Amino acid sequence: MTQPIAAIVLAAGKGTRMKSDLHKVLHPIAGRPMLLHLTQAVADLGAQRTIVVTGAGREQVEAAVAPLGIATAVQSEQLGTAHAVAQAESALSGFDGDVLILYGDVPLVTSRTMRRMLDMLQSEDAPTAVVLGFRPDVPGAYGRIIAGPDGRIIKMVEAKDATPEELSETLCNSGLMAVRSADLFRLLSRVGNDNAAGEYYLPDVVMLAQAEGGFAVVTETDADEVAGVNSRAELAAVDASWQVRRRAEAMAGGATLIAPDTVWFAHDTVIGRDVLIEPNVFFGPGVAIADGATIRAFCHIEGATVGAKAEVGPYARLRPGAVMGDKSKVGNFVEMKKAVLGEGAKANHLSYLGDAEVGAGANIGAGTITCNYDGFFKAKTVIGEGAFIGSNSALVAPVSIGAGAIVAAGSVVTADVEADALCLVRPVQVSKPGWAKRFRNAMLVKKVAKN
Amino acid sequence: MTQPIAAIVLAAGKGTRMKSDLHKVLHPIAGRPMLLHLTQAVADLGAQRTIVVTGAGREQVEAAVAPLGIATAVQSEQLGTAHAVAQAESALSGFDGDVLILYGDVPLVTSRTMRRMLDMLQSEDAPTAVVLGFRPDVPGAYGRIIAGPDGRIIKMVEAKDATPEELSETLCNSGLMAVRSADLFRLLSRVGNDNAAGEYYLPDVVMLAQAEGGFAVVTETDADEVAGVNSRAELAAVDASWQVRRRAEAMAGGATLIAPDTVWFAHDTVIGRDVLIEPNVFFGPGVAIADGATIRAFCHIEGATVGAKAEVGPYARLRPGAVMGDKSKVGNFVEMKKAVLGEGAKANHLSYLGDAEVGAGANIGAGTITCNYDGFFKAKTVIGEGAFIGSNSALVAPVSIGAGAIVAAGSVVTADVEADALCLVRPVQVSKPGWAKRFRNAMLVKKVAKN
Amino acid sequence: MTQPIAAIVLAAGKGTRMKSDLHKVLHPIAGRPMLLHLTQAVADLGAQRTIVVTGAGREQVEAAVAPLGIATAVQSEQLGTAHAVAQAESALSGFDGDVLILYGDVPLVTSRTMRRMLDMLQSEDAPTAVVLGFRPDVPGAYGRIIAGPDGRIIKMVEAKDATPEELSETLCNSGLMAVRSADLFRLLSRVGNDNAAGEYYLPDVVMLAQAEGGFAVVTETDADEVAGVNSRAELAAVDASWQVRRRAEAMAGGATLIAPDTVWFAHDTVIGRDVLIEPNVFFGPGVAIADGATIRAFCHIEGATVGAKAEVGPYARLRPGAVMGDKSKVGNFVEMKKAVLGEGAKANHLSYLGDAEVGAGANIGAGTITCNYDGFFKAKTVIGEGAFIGSNSALVAPVSIGAGAIVAAGSVVTADVEADALCLVRPVQVSKPGWAKRFRNAMLVKKVAKN
Repeated sequence: MTQPIAAIVLAAGKGTRMKSDLHKVLHPIAGRPMLLHLTQAVADLGAQRTIVVTGAGREQVEAAVAPLGIATAVQSEQLGTAHAVAQAESALSGFDGDVLILYGDVPLVTSRTMRRMLDMLQSEDAPTAVVLGFRPDVPGAYGRIIAGPDGRIIKMVEAKDATPEELSETLCNSGLMAVRSADLFRLLSRVGNDNAAGEYYLPDVVMLAQAEGGFAVVTETDADEVAGVNSRAELAAVDASWQVRRRAEAMAGGATLIAPDTVWFAHDTVIGRDVLIEPNVFFGPGVAIADGATIRAFCHIEGATVGAKAEVGPYARLRPGAVMGDKSKVGNFVEMKKAVLGEGAKANHLSYLGDAEVGAGANIGAGTITCNYDGFFKAKTVIGEGAFIGSNSALVAPVSIGAGAIVAAGSVVTADVEADALCLVRPVQVSKPGWAKRFRNAMLVKKVAKN
Repeated sequence: MTQPIAAIVLAAGKGTRMKSDLHKVLHPIAGRPMLLHLTQAVADLGAQRTIVVTGAGREQVEAAVAPLGIATAVQSEQLGTAHAVAQAESALSGFDGDVLILYGDVPLVTSRTMRRMLDMLQSEDAPTAVVLGFRPDVPGAYGRIIAGPDGRIIKMVEAKDATPEELSETLCNSGLMAVRSADLFRLLSRVGNDNAAGEYYLPDVVMLAQAEGGFAVVTETDADEVAGVNSRAELAAVDASWQVRRRAEAMAGGATLIAPDTVWFAHDTVIGRDVLIEPNVFFGPGVAIADGATIRAFCHIEGATVGAKAEVGPYARLRPGAVMGDKSKVGNFVEMKKAVLGEGAKANHLSYLGDAEVGAGANIGAGTITCNYDGFFKAKTVIGEGAFIGSNSALVAPVSIGAGAIVAAGSVVTADVEADALCLVRPVQVSKPGWAKRFRNAMLVKKVAKN
Repeated sequence: MTQPIAAIVLAAGKGTRMKSDLHKVLHPIAGRPMLLHLTQAVADLGAQRTIVVTGAGREQVEAAVAPLGIATAVQSEQLGTAHAVAQAESALSGFDGDVLILYGDVPLVTSRTMRRMLDMLQSEDAPTAVVLGFRPDVPGAYGRIIAGPDGRIIKMVEAKDATPEELSETLCNSGLMAVRSADLFRLLSRVGNDNAAGEYYLPDVVMLAQAEGGFAVVTETDADEVAGVNSRAELAAVDASWQVRRRAEAMAGGATLIAPDTVWFAHDTVIGRDVLIEPNVFFGPGVAIADGATIRAFCHIEGATVGAKAEVGPYARLRPGAVMGDKSKVGNFVEMKKAVLGEGAKANHLSYLGDAEVGAGANIGAGTITCNYDGFFKAKTVIGEGAFIGSNSALVAPVSIGAGAIVAAGSVVTADVEADALCLVRPVQVSKPGWAKRFRNAMLVKKVAKN
């Protein structure tokens, strides 16, 4: 039987170095707030409860997690990590199981690593706590972990309290920990603040556990996975490291990225097999690309679905609600929003399709605009199968173009067009012979006069 | 007198790790299938014959090389590299000369390196075979070459059969080899498969040659040049390394690349002197850019010619058949396809020029569309010298606008316009005073009612 | 009292390796000619005089600095750096103070470093000269500086004249120097050319000063700061190193750059706090972005001002004179030039706004074009507050649309529209039932006949 799991996520820090009105843990990585990367990983583990400990800017954090049914606890004063964790005690009342301690600004920890920590906590050895360690290139100010070859922790020490010998240890403390709930709060209540900073340090629970006859073990992970975000530069670095991982996955799955470094995925992007992605493509959240589709250079795609063997771009912008059917095409300088393009339909150039349904095989001419907004309400355009919309047409919604109908170039269509009809909205062409020559001469005279 | 040259290119592997319906050797590098990089290099050497040995997915490979007059041979079972090469024997019947053995998934080997191998084969020393070696960062699973200081090979050994001492050797076997045709097939017929994998290994010909009193020599090259492609990630890496080389060449030739890492060339891109390329430009195949042209950011250019001192972009898309005259300009959000822009002509904004001829000095207004397609046929638009096309016009092809003519803004032109005439296709402007205010009030009432 | 300051900038070299018709020192870094990076740094120091020493291509250089009131001196023959500096003597006649010697192709030296050199020159020690040294990864052909631990220079030696022991010294001479004017020209007059190249070397003044009982000191800086530009590749490398610095500053100042490596700043870009910049944004000179603005992917922005909380892009092009009010929006495939968008006004799709004023809260429909050019003159479009311009409209300037007016979709507006009016320029919609079907059948017959 597996133990119930809870997670405490510390998110009380001010994040001053971000210089932002947005709370640090809400800055996005791959299109999703950092904090939600963690809560998702915790949810993937099957955790029963998640408590986010908030402080400065708590309203923003509460608003972000409330829709997910995640509880919060408040740390009013910043008295150290042990103090922060202790604030979650009442929110966890009645919970008896394993507790993971996470950090809202250490967003990329995977559920696999969390699972490994929990498994170690439940191993036959029965450690009191499992600590996640890592070996950074420059250990610098990180707390050090002194451990035996079996991973059993001998000592954990803050860098500023460490001896030179301890500082030469390269195994550092990520701060992440797994502890049984019963042990956690009992030990926390005994942590003191008799140190230079006058703070209650979470690692002290390890020594307290030892004093009781218990022990803690360390498990190591890559420095990348526990990289923290305290500045915009670190935010960019963590996003970059996330992207590197995701691009490798996409390629391993059978997608060609001509220039992988120039493709940005969102946390939930789905990419099929034999998908070709040219350089410089940006995916926002909510995108799925089916097998064999081609995404040409300079596309910007969010909240959209692209069918099998469809072709997108270059310079296509698919906004939320864009749905491209199999083998359909959206070409350059075309924007789609809440619009469905049927199988094999095409909108190849300079068009805006908003709040529209386009039937299979229809052809949307260059420069076509669906006029979906009157300044107050949005309305819908429906284009039937096999219809042909001439270039530079404006379709004033609500309007419907029947299947097989043709709209002549330059038409402003305000009334429905029946199936198989030709719709023509066009004045007579007038020619004024010689006018252009006379105009040019007059203008040249004017130009000379001006100079 | 130089010896006749033949090349055998092995392309029978399945390429499972690519996870693709496209044969591995047909995945493109810099816009050209890998295999054709090699066949081009071989053609540059003046080779008389090229035989591609195919296996899985042979139809695709045959279809790709058939138009080039390249023969294929089939290896039905994957019994090792020596066996693969042996399949080319009948296709090479009657050939007497030097044979290069190449690999379809090792695409960047230059003809200069091939030439060096052939020259060594023809040297006074008269080696039986010349092997191409390299020193990778991590020798890992590569076969090792044990050679004397004079390059004479003592032993070639697969990594899995090597002693620890042999594994410490950093010189690795790229697999590429040059051998005289007479020697090659005689030695191949004696290669056995008495090894762990039960395969016929090509390097065995070296030991067999020695047993006959002959010998083989090794020549080294950079690891980059013999990088192999077995996955999409390796495909991207080889493309990236090709691009680095090409960008350096472009800069050495007198082009400014503001951000070289963001410019992608195709295998045949031609770039003049004092060309300025802003960040993020993608060149597909078939492009030539003349001296002094400026390519601004975010351009996508394929199959196009850009004249001297012309200006392109930002956000210009030139498709196959686009020809820009000297000092002409194509601006933002403009697409050209099978279209010629005369000297000094301009299409600065938001236009589509397809199947068109634009005379020197003509001005194409913003939002102009050539309506070149009626759903069935393409037709042509001809615009004379010095003509002025007003904004948001649609030119319904086939149609011609005479030299010096002016088309008024918003016109849909369906009939030819004579030279120096003004063409006007426009209804009368109507004003309904106060209408907008009444509409707004009504809509506000409706909006309130909805909420 | 601080000493008067003068700067001599050497810019007489041919720059052959650039392969360019543009003088080497005029090639831009971050949108500003290299030479002007230096003259700006010198101006920031409060220098009284700047003399640029020109030679080959002097006309271009003179034209570039003349508007800044900077004097030039000519070095007709390339006889070495000491000779070049000596040419500035008469242009500096009457000047008594400290002289900085700089190089037009070493463009990134900061005024802070220059200030440090001048401060050392004025220190109590009173050195005769201060030399700027650096430690490159590969000292190679750089002149070496042999100095004591106190920075006092023992010897300066060209690489080709150096002993092996001297070559093992990693401290190299950047060529930059600060010397009092009185000392400088006296010492220069005594520099000889008795060396392999027959050139007058500037470092010789150090030994000559020593012979007089004076001395020189060295101060070190990063190799990046004194990187020189002799080729397009080095130009790109110096630009890249400038960009890395600037991106870090932007992030430290509170801007989020999702992919910092893909954002290019100009020398004078101003970025506010909580600005979000998506990947692939290019800033030309003259741009200021206010707090809280969002710049989406693929924007190209030059000479433009973006208000607080405004939204730009993706694919927006702001050209010189574009001014976006607070909370205004410019969306995809929209170009602005000499145009003002009022607070909260929107131009979301596929539009060109040139020579225009758009009032607060106005809505510019998709595909709207301001027709600002008649082939001879530019004219202005004025759109009042709260006006609504229907999609695909063409506004033929000079024209004004009153506040609160509505222009119906597809209109070509040539006469002013009064406030709160509806403007309609549209023919009647005509339907030809069954026509499209008949057309299709006829075309299919034709298509079959063609094949």
